[in-house]
Amino acid sequence: MLTYDLSERGSLPIYEYLARRIRDDVLSGELPAGERLPSKRALAEHLGVSVVTVEAAYAQLEAEGCLLARPRRGYFVAEAARGPRSAPPQPRAASPEEERPWALDLRGSRVDTSRFPVAAWARLTRQVLSDGGGALLSPVPHQGLRPLRQAISDFLAGYKGMSAPPENIVVGAGAEFMYILLAQLLGPGAAIAVEDPGYPKIRQVYSRSGALCRPLPLDGGGVSLDALRASGALALHISPSHQFPTGLVTPMPRRQALLRWARETGGYIIEDDYDSELRFSGRPLPTLQSIDPAGRVVYMNTFSQTISPSMRIGYLVLPPELMARWRRELGFYSCAVPALEQHVLSRFLAGGHYERHLARMRKEYRSLRSEVLSAFRGSPFARRISIDERGAGLHFLLHLDTDRSDAELRERAASLGVHLAFLSDYAAAHSAPEHTLVISYAALSRAQLPEAMELLSRVLEG
Amino acid sequence: MLTYDLSERGSLPIYEYLARRIRDDVLSGELPAGERLPSKRALAEHLGVSVVTVEAAYAQLEAEGCLLARPRRGYFVAEAARGPRSAPPQPRAASPEEERPWALDLRGSRVDTSRFPVAAWARLTRQVLSDGGGALLSPVPHQGLRPLRQAISDFLAGYKGMSAPPENIVVGAGAEFMYILLAQLLGPGAAIAVEDPGYPKIRQVYSRSGALCRPLPLDGGGVSLDALRASGALALHISPSHQFPTGLVTPMPRRQALLRWARETGGYIIEDDYDSELRFSGRPLPTLQSIDPAGRVVYMNTFSQTISPSMRIGYLVLPPELMARWRRELGFYSCAVPALEQHVLSRFLAGGHYERHLARMRKEYRSLRSEVLSAFRGSPFARRISIDERGAGLHFLLHLDTDRSDAELRERAASLGVHLAFLSDYAAAHSAPEHTLVISYAALSRAQLPEAMELLSRVLEG
Repeated sequence: MLTYDLSERGSLPIYEYLARRIRDDVLSGELPAGERLPSKRALAEHLGVSVVTVEAAYAQLEAEGCLLARPRRGYFVAEAARGPRSAPPQPRAASPEEERPWALDLRGSRVDTSRFPVAAWARLTRQVLSDGGGALLSPVPHQGLRPLRQAISDFLAGYKGMSAPPENIVVGAGAEFMYILLAQLLGPGAAIAVEDPGYPKIRQVYSRSGALCRPLPLDGGGVSLDALRASGALALHISPSHQFPTGLVTPMPRRQALLRWARETGGYIIEDDYDSELRFSGRPLPTLQSIDPAGRVVYMNTFSQTISPSMRIGYLVLPPELMARWRRELGFYSCAVPALEQHVLSRFLAGGHYERHLARMRKEYRSLRSEVLSAFRGSPFARRISIDERGAGLHFLLHLDTDRSDAELRERAASLGVHLAFLSDYAAAHSAPEHTLVISYAALSRAQLPEAMELLSRVLEG
Repeated sequence: MLTYDLSERGSLPIYEYLARRIRDDVLSGELPAGERLPSKRALAEHLGVSVVTVEAAYAQLEAEGCLLARPRRGYFVAEAARGPRSAPPQPRAASPEEERPWALDLRGSRVDTSRFPVAAWARLTRQVLSDGGGALLSPVPHQGLRPLRQAISDFLAGYKGMSAPPENIVVGAGAEFMYILLAQLLGPGAAIAVEDPGYPKIRQVYSRSGALCRPLPLDGGGVSLDALRASGALALHISPSHQFPTGLVTPMPRRQALLRWARETGGYIIEDDYDSELRFSGRPLPTLQSIDPAGRVVYMNTFSQTISPSMRIGYLVLPPELMARWRRELGFYSCAVPALEQHVLSRFLAGGHYERHLARMRKEYRSLRSEVLSAFRGSPFARRISIDERGAGLHFLLHLDTDRSDAELRERAASLGVHLAFLSDYAAAHSAPEHTLVISYAALSRAQLPEAMELLSRVLEG
């Protein structure tokens, strides 16, 4: 007779626990196919439960196809309900390696979120929530909430002098998701030219999304036009306002030449304006989108650099031709950003909080940046470095005068707990200069600077 | 001399407004390449501004590459800085068609969110926000927040008897995003078998993501095994607990046969458990994932059906082999769900709110469903219909006894403001039976039922 210890059932109803135990025995082969089960009455008596309980368990197992009920004969184990005989227990996946805690991390993609106006954001969130759930739960248009697209449009007009009507804006869950959408929009096998050296995720996401990446070398003005023409690319993905990692700013004549390439070849330019709000000297150049009357430019940006990478919201501004294609071919995609964030961000933008936050961030980063640069210039190794910075963004380049290879330096640094990024780390098809560090200073604190210089000095010494 | 009305500059600094106006003239060709600009002093005097202001504007335009500074000779318009001559204004994209307001919408994918415990959700959100921004702004692991993965793991263990360690869970921004990730995980050109008829977005997303869809016909137990074997598919995407739109529940013997197929061919089964929480009679069958010791099943689910489609959160439970591949090949993807939602949802789950909400939802839907079924069975056309429902989910099938084609019925319904979904709408490669409506009752209200029956009666009459 089937014997189960019903006291182990925890909070499960008895019938459910009984069904689970019998099912386990069927799946393991303990109860072989064709075996007749005890009558409901007999099993109920044996286990000290009601007949109704056993009946419910048998009925459940019959509904699942584990048992067969034969009229007036009782329940039998179904054929083929059993699992494989010697089922090994499913192993757990190994845990991912823990992030190593670095004594000094100059590679981090962290931004300083300590200046974020959490109180204002929280207040706006409470406001949205107090609307009784409507804003939280009602459906979101696939392009994103209209008030958010309007607020983005207004921001782009006022802050960057761009004309980006809300109808042409698509809100997406961060840059990577938008790269996927763009690859799908351009079609399978589309060749997309990218900057080399460049941000590796752009290449990774495009390649995984079925596009063919064509890394183009950079000259002093950005991507090489000759290489672009020779690449046969359908689209060019660039960050003309502040290239990562070189910091290059593409000057106006090159911008016009790139736009000419797009018009003449029917190509597209994806203008990835990822950190253009963080400019510390002068004003930003006009975006390619705003000097492109022919509709060849896709503008994209996110709030990751300026608010937090943990808030995955970005947007595309599509030119009319691609907007129409998006609606036709990709319009089935739901907007992947939760409604709550969209409502809060739209109020954050419309209420001027974002522009005030940007002003504070610029001030803070400008000051931190200048202290970091001073620390380097006053360091024991000051004569062995030269700094290449363009008064913008959260990183700058630092050239080292050294005989050691990048690999040696990296190893030496790691042994001291220092995490370094080299320009050569970001190279794809073309070699990048050695001995050039990409310094992400945003995660540094002022208090850390003396120790940081001491550690770097030991990396470089000897 | 250049003359600009500086009173039109709004809130812009004068130098910035001046730079913008000069830039516009350069871009339009109004100021031709090579033209020499007035001296700073002369222009300052002419416009009644300070020399420093003009200097700042010129310096900005020089930095952009719009102007060239020649020592001791002044500023000149740069070559190639000009845009195309006859630049047509960029047209706005046409607005997408407005959603038609239907008198009766039986097709909607809306779920009834009125029972969602907004107050509890709002309270948890306030709690998270009161932690001072840490939870809002600190980095999120790429697989999703650990506490959320733990809470999902606990929920799956308690609610479905599943063993899904947090290490094997990947949190994603809704079902569509997870379909994209799965297609990328299986590799370009992977053949994925899908149910036919089935949820169209599955086919759409997979196809756009580089996979090859193989629609398989259904028999009474789910996808046909012969067709599956013949398809040569690497993976099979199914909803065995309640297929959309047919409502089929795959019985245990078929489940075992599908798992055998996966083991024997090295294939994978993607178990899309999209509405399994909404079961109104009996208990759910064990998931494929929980009876698969060989690690061939990817389990996926979202909170869209049970909380709201506007909260784009879902998750994958990957078997060890695919989890390792995800870390190796796709681990670069950031988690696309904002940190705030992850913190709130993890508390919502861990605090038991979700299970209580599910219990309320089931009660509410069971009662609405039964009233809707009664209304159909008591309608004037009751003798011309038969209902096919499995006591689960937010839809059921309704077969019509009619001579009219589905196209005629749809047109007739539309003329009365009634939005109908037919089983044949969801067919891909195989024809589906005509005269079968897919009734999504979740967006119906009780008060609407008499009018709904009256409208449907008019669609069917004659």
